[in-house]
Amino acid sequence: MTWKAEGASNAQDKRETLLRAAVQLFNEKGFGSTSLDDVAASLGISKPTIYYYLGNKDRVLLECISRGLQQLQQAAADARMRQGMGRDRLESFLIEYAKINMDDFGRCTIRTRDHDLSPESARTFRQLKRSVDAELRALLEGGMADGSIARSDVRLLAFAIAGALNAPAYWFDAKGALDAGTVARALVAILIEGMAPRGTSEGPD
Amino acid sequence: MTWKAEGASNAQDKRETLLRAAVQLFNEKGFGSTSLDDVAASLGISKPTIYYYLGNKDRVLLECISRGLQQLQQAAADARMRQGMGRDRLESFLIEYAKINMDDFGRCTIRTRDHDLSPESARTFRQLKRSVDAELRALLEGGMADGSIARSDVRLLAFAIAGALNAPAYWFDAKGALDAGTVARALVAILIEGMAPRGTSEGPD
Repeated sequence: MTWKAEGASNAQDKRETLLRAAVQLFNEKGFGSTSLDDVAASLGISKPTIYYYLGNKDRVLLECISRGLQQLQQAAADARMRQGMGRDRLESFLIEYAKINMDDFGRCTIRTRDHDLSPESARTFRQLKRSVDAELRALLEGGMADGSIARSDVRLLAFAIAGALNAPAYWFDAKGALDAGTVARALVAILIEGMAPRGTSEGPD
Repeated sequence: MTWKAEGASNAQDKRETLLRAAVQLFNEKGFGSTSLDDVAASLGISKPTIYYYLGNKDRVLLECISRGLQQLQQAAADARMRQGMGRDRLESFLIEYAKINMDDFGRCTIRTRDHDLSPESARTFRQLKRSVDAELRALLEGGMADGSIARSDVRLLAFAIAGALNAPAYWFDAKGALDAGTVARALVAILIEGMAPRGTSEGPD
């Protein structure tokens, strides 16, 4: 992939191309093992060009995780607008949540640790994560309020969900047999239905 | 904590004291940010003493994650011996699994990445993790075979469970309001029962 082959003709396109190259290298090699020189080399450009469009490595990572968290916020906003019971809105959000975490920016977001960022960027990171967590809790509470989700400790439930749906950021292989949508739907079905059989029609065979 | 205050009187006790101090520092500061000098300083001893009893930093980490994975293997062996349905054996294993991941060695095991270890130690690490994963899958298959666990994709189910129950290694606070056993039982109940209400007696209120 080169700068020109990407067809980056204006500043906005160039930022986008840089950011895509950076997030893919962070995910592939790990943030700590990736330098902006590596990112520049992967596009056949110089490091000052990256500084010019995006800033230093901390700014680049902050931009990547902001994208990931904006995607999650958008998914929550879309889910909130849906018709149906709380469970339907929750299910729709969780499937998108899982899919985003298997995509470039979401994957980077999940893998980023506070200590990868400057103290100021880490504060922004925590704040954005808290807002997504608040969306998840609100959807859970909505489902509990209309009876479509069983009542339980919302905080622990949110932790269990996030644990199960963040994990694919580590193991999902886009070149594997299962696509992200299939994996997302299967994981969410497990969380919603549970492992124990339900009713007689779905019971032991 | 000092070497003498720990009452480490023989080689076995000394190894144990060193290992505990190391795993606690790895968990607290991160493996990459902890040197064997830090471990030595926390016990008021010299770095060569650590080398003498445990070896280099790679050996120390390998020993920590081996302990964590041995605890998980023991939990699986205990669960296999239990009476009852497959679901009961699975439930008992998962509760122990979650508790171990909130304890020192289990927490270190979950947080360790392949690149923290030498290539040879990373191979051992992956091998030990695979054996625990095989135990989990066997318990799931046992539950599906006797009808106490709903049939689904065992691989994805194992991933969802591991994701939900590994995550407390990052967020669980031993000084917090909930003890590890309470958190473990609540997370496992969510995975087994699911979020959707069950039957009329447990339905919407």
